[in-house]
Amino acid sequence: MLKVAVVGASGYTGVELLRLLHGHPEVTVSCVTSEQNAGRPVAEIFPTLRGRYAQQLENLEPVRVAEKADLIFTALPHKAAMEVVPTFLKLGKRVVDLSADYRFNDAAVYESWYEPHLNPELLGQAVYGLPEVRRAEIVPAQLVGNPGCYPTCTILGLQPLVRQGVIDPTTVIVDAKSGVSGAGRGAKVDNLYCEVNEGFKPYGVGGVHRHLPEIEQELSLLAGEQVMISFTPHLVPMDRGILATSYARLAADLSPADLVRLFGEFYAGEPFVRVLPQGSFPSTAHVRGANFCDIGVTVDTRTGRVIVVSAIDNLVKGAAGQAVQNMNLMCGFPETMGLDGLALFP
Amino acid sequence: MLKVAVVGASGYTGVELLRLLHGHPEVTVSCVTSEQNAGRPVAEIFPTLRGRYAQQLENLEPVRVAEKADLIFTALPHKAAMEVVPTFLKLGKRVVDLSADYRFNDAAVYESWYEPHLNPELLGQAVYGLPEVRRAEIVPAQLVGNPGCYPTCTILGLQPLVRQGVIDPTTVIVDAKSGVSGAGRGAKVDNLYCEVNEGFKPYGVGGVHRHLPEIEQELSLLAGEQVMISFTPHLVPMDRGILATSYARLAADLSPADLVRLFGEFYAGEPFVRVLPQGSFPSTAHVRGANFCDIGVTVDTRTGRVIVVSAIDNLVKGAAGQAVQNMNLMCGFPETMGLDGLALFP
Amino acid sequence: MLKVAVVGASGYTGVELLRLLHGHPEVTVSCVTSEQNAGRPVAEIFPTLRGRYAQQLENLEPVRVAEKADLIFTALPHKAAMEVVPTFLKLGKRVVDLSADYRFNDAAVYESWYEPHLNPELLGQAVYGLPEVRRAEIVPAQLVGNPGCYPTCTILGLQPLVRQGVIDPTTVIVDAKSGVSGAGRGAKVDNLYCEVNEGFKPYGVGGVHRHLPEIEQELSLLAGEQVMISFTPHLVPMDRGILATSYARLAADLSPADLVRLFGEFYAGEPFVRVLPQGSFPSTAHVRGANFCDIGVTVDTRTGRVIVVSAIDNLVKGAAGQAVQNMNLMCGFPETMGLDGLALFP
Amino acid sequence: MLKVAVVGASGYTGVELLRLLHGHPEVTVSCVTSEQNAGRPVAEIFPTLRGRYAQQLENLEPVRVAEKADLIFTALPHKAAMEVVPTFLKLGKRVVDLSADYRFNDAAVYESWYEPHLNPELLGQAVYGLPEVRRAEIVPAQLVGNPGCYPTCTILGLQPLVRQGVIDPTTVIVDAKSGVSGAGRGAKVDNLYCEVNEGFKPYGVGGVHRHLPEIEQELSLLAGEQVMISFTPHLVPMDRGILATSYARLAADLSPADLVRLFGEFYAGEPFVRVLPQGSFPSTAHVRGANFCDIGVTVDTRTGRVIVVSAIDNLVKGAAGQAVQNMNLMCGFPETMGLDGLALFP
Repeated sequence: MLKVAVVGASGYTGVELLRLLHGHPEVTVSCVTSEQNAGRPVAEIFPTLRGRYAQQLENLEPVRVAEKADLIFTALPHKAAMEVVPTFLKLGKRVVDLSADYRFNDAAVYESWYEPHLNPELLGQAVYGLPEVRRAEIVPAQLVGNPGCYPTCTILGLQPLVRQGVIDPTTVIVDAKSGVSGAGRGAKVDNLYCEVNEGFKPYGVGGVHRHLPEIEQELSLLAGEQVMISFTPHLVPMDRGILATSYARLAADLSPADLVRLFGEFYAGEPFVRVLPQGSFPSTAHVRGANFCDIGVTVDTRTGRVIVVSAIDNLVKGAAGQAVQNMNLMCGFPETMGLDGLALFP
Repeated sequence: MLKVAVVGASGYTGVELLRLLHGHPEVTVSCVTSEQNAGRPVAEIFPTLRGRYAQQLENLEPVRVAEKADLIFTALPHKAAMEVVPTFLKLGKRVVDLSADYRFNDAAVYESWYEPHLNPELLGQAVYGLPEVRRAEIVPAQLVGNPGCYPTCTILGLQPLVRQGVIDPTTVIVDAKSGVSGAGRGAKVDNLYCEVNEGFKPYGVGGVHRHLPEIEQELSLLAGEQVMISFTPHLVPMDRGILATSYARLAADLSPADLVRLFGEFYAGEPFVRVLPQGSFPSTAHVRGANFCDIGVTVDTRTGRVIVVSAIDNLVKGAAGQAVQNMNLMCGFPETMGLDGLALFP
Repeated sequence: MLKVAVVGASGYTGVELLRLLHGHPEVTVSCVTSEQNAGRPVAEIFPTLRGRYAQQLENLEPVRVAEKADLIFTALPHKAAMEVVPTFLKLGKRVVDLSADYRFNDAAVYESWYEPHLNPELLGQAVYGLPEVRRAEIVPAQLVGNPGCYPTCTILGLQPLVRQGVIDPTTVIVDAKSGVSGAGRGAKVDNLYCEVNEGFKPYGVGGVHRHLPEIEQELSLLAGEQVMISFTPHLVPMDRGILATSYARLAADLSPADLVRLFGEFYAGEPFVRVLPQGSFPSTAHVRGANFCDIGVTVDTRTGRVIVVSAIDNLVKGAAGQAVQNMNLMCGFPETMGLDGLALFP
Repeated sequence: MLKVAVVGASGYTGVELLRLLHGHPEVTVSCVTSEQNAGRPVAEIFPTLRGRYAQQLENLEPVRVAEKADLIFTALPHKAAMEVVPTFLKLGKRVVDLSADYRFNDAAVYESWYEPHLNPELLGQAVYGLPEVRRAEIVPAQLVGNPGCYPTCTILGLQPLVRQGVIDPTTVIVDAKSGVSGAGRGAKVDNLYCEVNEGFKPYGVGGVHRHLPEIEQELSLLAGEQVMISFTPHLVPMDRGILATSYARLAADLSPADLVRLFGEFYAGEPFVRVLPQGSFPSTAHVRGANFCDIGVTVDTRTGRVIVVSAIDNLVKGAAGQAVQNMNLMCGFPETMGLDGLALFP
C-alpha cells in the first residue's frame, strides 16, 4: 500500500481527494493537514467522511508529513505550495502539486501573473500533469504540476485541432463557464448562496484570468508557435462542472463528420476522453463526479468556424481526479484505478 | 383605461404579462385566453395571481377577443399567431405579437427557418419592436413583432459598435446563455428539474438556432451591409435571465475607457439601458424581474478584440416587459409606465 | 411626500426595503446608512438599484439621520438597533424597527434569549407590528417592532385556530422551512453557495431558536393562556420563502371544509392573507417577491390532527414588506400602497 | 460473476442501479430493458454511461430476461412489476423489486392504497428489504420488496425509539422532505425546472401519501401494536435527498445524551447507519450519492418531545443502493460491496 498525504485538506479539492482515495485499492491516506482546523477530526469538517475517515487534521510540518508519506498531494493556495514542496523533494518524496506553483516552464511568466517564485530552479524538473498531452513524462516525474481546471478543459478540447494544424491559431476564442466550487471555500460575500444563486455572470473579462497564460503555454507547445487566445470565464449557479465553448477559423476544408472522426482517432484509447457522436454536445451534468472529459465538435459552415465544446468536473478531471490519475502513472498503477466511478445523475 | 387582451396566457410569457399589466395604471385586462385551460380561472393555473385576477380563461375566438379589447398581446407559438392576427387587424385592433411570425422583413427568411407564412403581406407593415433601435416606427404601428429574447440582448449589446463602424463585422461571435424559462412550459423530459439542474450545456450548436436570422437581419440593417455571425446558445440552471458575451475585432484604436464612453453616449437617455462603469460587467441576477438591459464593455488589448457583455431578463425585456414598453409607445403612455419595478435580489 | 431613512442598508432586508420604497408613491428615501460601506453609492453595493438610486451610503449618526427623515426603518442586527432607536424617538421620529429589540413585552424574556436590554422602558410603548393581529394599535404607534419572519408565518397560520379555541394548545408542533436569505449577508462558510446548494437540513433543533419565544408570546396572548410549542426550523436551498407546517390536535369536531370556511371568514377582508380552497396548499414560489401570506388547512382524520400550511416571502411579508405595511398604517396611507406587486413566477 | 438484469432502466432508479452495479466487482449487467427506448443504446439515454455501458435497451420479455440473468432488479412502476415478477420466480430467478407491489404483508392494505393485487399469494413469501430491520430474512429470500424512500428514512429514524418503547406511539408526527428525483422522470408540467426551482411546498397533506401505510406496517410490527402516525411530505428544490423530522412524546425520562447513546448502541455495527454526536444533525448534502442513513436525535425538554432527524439519498439508500445491499445479502457477498462510495460534496 502506498502511503499518501493530503496537505491542505479543508478545501473542496482536499475533500474530493479524500473521497477518491477512499476508493483506491492501492493507497492508504496516512496524513491529512489543515492549518485552520488542526486537531479536529477531518470528518467533523466534512461529515461526508464520517465513519470512513478517523484521521485528525494535523498542522503542516513538512518534515513530519514527509516521514509519514511516500507521495504527497499539496492542495494549498499558490505560494503556500512552493514554501513546502522543496522539503518534500529533498526528502525523496514524490509530489503532485495542485496549486499553480509548478505549472509554468518559464518563471518570468509565473511571476508576471502571480508573484516572485521561491524556487524557480524546480520548474525545469516539474512536469505539467496533463496525461493526455504528456503521459510519458509524468511516469518518471518526482514533481508534477497538476493543471488548472480551465486549462484542462480547454487544452483537451483544442489539442486535436492545434496538433493537426487545421485551425488558424490567431482566431481562437474560448468562452468558458464554471460551477461555484471553482471559487474555493473561503468565507466571501461574493460566494454566498444568495449572491450566486439564480444569476449568471462573467468575471476576469478582457484577458486577465490567471489560467490564460497556462492555456497559452500549452497550446503554444502543441502548435509549435506562440498562440494567443481570448479567454472569458463565467460563473454558473451550480456546484461542479466546467464547460468551454471554443471557436476558431478552420484552416482546412473539413466537415462536421471529418472533425468528429479526427477527434475520435486522436483520442482513441484514452480512458477518460469521450468524443461524442456528430450532433451531440456535452453537458457538465454528465461528468459530475467522474474523471471524464466529454467533447463535441462541429463546424459553423456559414462562417467557416469550428466550434468545440468540452466539459469536465472541475474538482475531478480538473483537480483531484487528475491528481490521482497522475499518481497512478507515477506509481505504476493502472491509470484508471480508483477513478472508474460513473457520474452521479441526477 | 385601455382594454387589453392576453391571448395564450398559460405559458411563462403570458403570466409575466399579467403580472406587469396588473401594475399598469392605464390598462385593464379584459380578456385572457388559453386553449388548454379554457373555462378555468387563470388564478388556478397561476396561483401567484390569486386574489388579484378573477378572470376565467377563454377559448381563442378571434372575433370575440377583438370585441373585448383595444390592444391584443398574442403570446402564442409561431404559426398559431399568424392564424389569428389578421382578424385582429381587420377589426381595427392593435397587436403586439410575441411570436416570431412578424419579426422578419423578408418572408423567404422566415420560411427557410420556420415554415410557409400565412400572410406575408403583413410583414411590410409590421414593425420590429425594439424601441432602442426603432422607437419612432413603433409609435404609429398597428402591428408590432416583439423581438426574441436572444436578439434583444445581443442587438442592444452590439448596436453601438455596429452603428459606429468600429468593429470588423465578419468577426462577430456571440456566445449566449439563457435560463430555463426560455424553453417554455411544455411537458418535456428535457426540461424536467432533474434533467436541467446542476448542469450546463449548449444547444443549437453550429449556427442553427432560429434567433440567428433575426439577429443578423437587425445587425445588417444597422451596419448597412450583410452581417453574418456565429451564435451559440447555452442553457443555465436558473429560472430567468439571458447573458450574451459578444466578441469582435476592433477596427479602430479604442481603449476600454473609449468604449465605455461610446456606449454611455449612445444610450444616454434610454430609460432601460444601463451602461456599466469600466471594469464592471452585468449579472442576470441584477435584472431579474426588471425591464433593464445592462451592458459592460472592454477590450482584450492583447488580441485586439472588443468584448461586450449584455444581460436581460428573458421574460421581461426579452418578452413581456418589452411588449408593455411597445404598448406604451403605441398608446402614448410614458414609456416606463408599469415597468419601473426594480429587480428582485436576491 | 414622506421622507424616510433606511438604516442598515447593506443587508438583504435593506435592499428589499429600497426596492419596495422605490415603488411607493408617497415616500421619498432621504437617507441610507451602512457602517461598512459608508461613502459608496448604494447602487454600487446593489447593482439592482443602478439608475434609480443615486444616494451614497452614510455613516449612522442618529441625530443627522433624524434630521433628514420623518420615519426611520432600522434594519440593523439586534442590539445595534436599541443603541440608536431612543435618539430617533426623542427627536420625535417614528420608527419601524426590523430587529428583535422591540418585539417583546417582557424584558426578561428578551434578556434570556438575547442579552441585557438597553432601554426596557420602551417595550411598553412598542407595538408588535403584525397588522392582521393588532392593526388598531399600530396606527398611532411611534415605535413598531416588526415581527420576525418565522413568527409572521406561524402566527398567521395558527391565529384562527387559537382564537377560536378549536385546538389543544399543548399539542402544537411547528415544522418550519426557510430560504437562505433569512441567514443574512454575512461572510460565513456555512452560507457559501456550495455548502447550502443541493442540501436540506434542520438547525436550532430542540427548541432553541430565538423566534420561538416570539411565537409563544403572541400565541399565548391570542389563546389567553400560556402556550408552549415545539418549533424546528430547516434550511431550504432557495433564496426566498418560508413555509410552516403546523400540527395540533383538534379540540372540536371539524371537517376540512369547516376549517377552510373558518379560516376564510377569519381573514375575510385582509388584503394580504389568501386562504386557499380545500385541497390546495401553498408554495413559497407563489409569494416570491409579494406581500402575501398564503394558507392551506386540512384535517388528518385518521389521527384527529389539524394541519396548517402557511407560506410567505421572508424578505417581504416576513420583513421589508410588512415594515412598509406598518408604515402605511402609521401614516394613514392605504394599507396596500407600494405593496401591490404580484409574485415573480417563475 | 453474477449476471443481473435491470428491468425498467430509463428512470432515475434504473440509471442509479447501473451506476452502482458498474462498481460492483462480483456482478455483470447482462440485460437492461426499457419499453419506451427499446433498441437504443442505454448510454444514449443516459450519457453518464458512455464508454462504460455498451448495452442496448431491450423490450421487456420476461422469459428472455430470465434466461439472461440470475437475479433481476425490477425498477418498474407498481402494477407493471407484479405483471412480470411471477414469471421470474417461476423460472427460479431471484428478484429485488423496487416498486410497491411486494412491500405489504396484507393484500387488503395494498389494494386500499393502490389497486387489485395480481398475485397476493406472493406477499407471504416476499421479504420487506430493510436490512437494518430484518437482515436474517433477506438472506434466503427469493423475492425482496425493496422499501420506499420515505419509509426507509422514517423507519430507520424511529426504530430504536419504537423497539425500546420509550415513546408514546400515538403521538408520532413525521414531517418529511424530498428532492425532486423522487417524483420520477415522467414528462409532467409539475416537475419542470421552472415549476419546482426556488419553491418549497407540501403535497399529499392530510395522511394520503402511499408511503404512509408502509411506514405504519413496519412501525406496528416493531412496536408490537398498531401504530398510526401523521405524515406530511414536502418537495425540496434539489435533485436528491430525503430528510425526515420526526416528533413524539417521550414515555421515559431520557436526556439528549441518553438518546444519542441509545441510538448509538442500537445501530452499533451497522455499516450504513451513522448516529451523529449530540448536538449534530444530518444534512442530505452529506449522504448525496452514498448508501448511508445519517441520524441525529435530541429532546425538546420544554415540551417533553423527542425529535429525530434522519437523512438518506432517496436514490441510493432509498432505492438502488438498498437494492444492491439486499442483493449482497441474498448472494452472500459482503454487505457493503459496491456501496462504499462516499458522498459527493459539494
